Amino acid sequence: MRFTYVTLFSNLIEGYFQDSILKRALEADHFQIAFLNPRDNSASRHHKVDDTAVGGGAGMVMTPQPLFDTLSTLDSDAYIIFVAPVGKQFTQNDAKRLAKKSHVVFVSGRYEGIDERVLETFADEVFSIGDYVLTGGELPSLVMTDAIVRNINGVLGNSESLETESFETPLLEAPSFGKPPLYEDMVVPSEYLKGNHSRILALKLALSECKTKYFRPEQLLKHKIRTSYEK
Amino acid sequence: MRFTYVTLFSNLIEGYFQDSILKRALEADHFQIAFLNPRDNSASRHHKVDDTAVGGGAGMVMTPQPLFDTLSTLDSDAYIIFVAPVGKQFTQNDAKRLAKKSHVVFVSGRYEGIDERVLETFADEVFSIGDYVLTGGELPSLVMTDAIVRNINGVLGNSESLETESFETPLLEAPSFGKPPLYEDMVVPSEYLKGNHSRILALKLALSECKTKYFRPEQLLKHKIRTSYEK
Repeated sequence: MRFTYVTLFSNLIEGYFQDSILKRALEADHFQIAFLNPRDNSASRHHKVDDTAVGGGAGMVMTPQPLFDTLSTLDSDAYIIFVAPVGKQFTQNDAKRLAKKSHVVFVSGRYEGIDERVLETFADEVFSIGDYVLTGGELPSLVMTDAIVRNINGVLGNSESLETESFETPLLEAPSFGKPPLYEDMVVPSEYLKGNHSRILALKLALSECKTKYFRPEQLLKHKIRTSYEK
Repeated sequence: MRFTYVTLFSNLIEGYFQDSILKRALEADHFQIAFLNPRDNSASRHHKVDDTAVGGGAGMVMTPQPLFDTLSTLDSDAYIIFVAPVGKQFTQNDAKRLAKKSHVVFVSGRYEGIDERVLETFADEVFSIGDYVLTGGELPSLVMTDAIVRNINGVLGNSESLETESFETPLLEAPSFGKPPLYEDMVVPSEYLKGNHSRILALKLALSECKTKYFRPEQLLKHKIRTSYEK
């Protein structure tokens, strides 16, 4: 699987591949990355990529020409994703679905945004990663990359690790406890220590339901609907 | 304002401060950053920070001792934020609110999570940035930092730029168009070109409402409630 980042600031993205799981997966050739800078395709004398907005308003807009000329060079298998507040919320299901593509391209805007004609012409999908304002599309591109890469076969050593994670079921995860069981005056729930795995699983499920009921009640409802179908 | 990142992988975070608005804001001393590695405080011979989970289950849990000894060294003004799926969704309002703190600390988990006793003892808040699974807390820490820094006074040159952005009002932004008005066979809406600013604003508002109605209907309702109060 390939990821291409169309960005004015590739160094904001590259740093994240320097360590941990993504570095190892890159070195093991589970995926490849490439960068394209729209500035390299600017036809203007000073390699301009932005201009004031047509119709006025604060800030600069990324103009169509450099992005058109950059995105037109992509192979036909490129699946082009833009990041914009107007986009639909990116979720774990999108991460799983996109992990099956051969080539995903993330286009990062900066300034006040990207000329709408670029999105109309090239966007296969437009995502938002959450309801907050960020400086550009670089962090959202990394967030989506991280979530997608974890779903490529072979990236996570332990497949069980993926299945029990939050968002894989509608329930939030039960609390985790590391060693020692007694740290200072704080002890883990005693059932965790007794070694009866079916009782531990039952307790974890109860703690999961309890956490979900408190923090994400709408998710508990989904869980109840799903388990009632399974019965 | 200060940000401290408690992480095993500071290089995943540092790269993002190498360019663009965050680099300039850092150089202009609008904020400062520091890193703490729990591994440096591990009391174990091999500087271990993780172990198998008490009670079984896949994956490794970050153990209490290294994090307790790291977080105990922080000044009393430290406002400590954990990232976890159980957390509440981080929003633009949180970004604005946290921009008023003197010192925000982000604790990044890796592996299957952090021992629950650490969160119970130190967490001022627990956030999730969205419903997807990531490798660690480093990217969410950067996402929150970026959103917060933009709300520190003086970071964005043009204060109007901040006010007209999406999520500052319940409406999504109207499409942006850069120059030229006619690119290949695509033309911007003709009203944008006529220079009558009150008519342009009226058109932008109509386009915003239309986009919001289609993509985020629940936000349009908020907008209608808000504007009906203003009348």
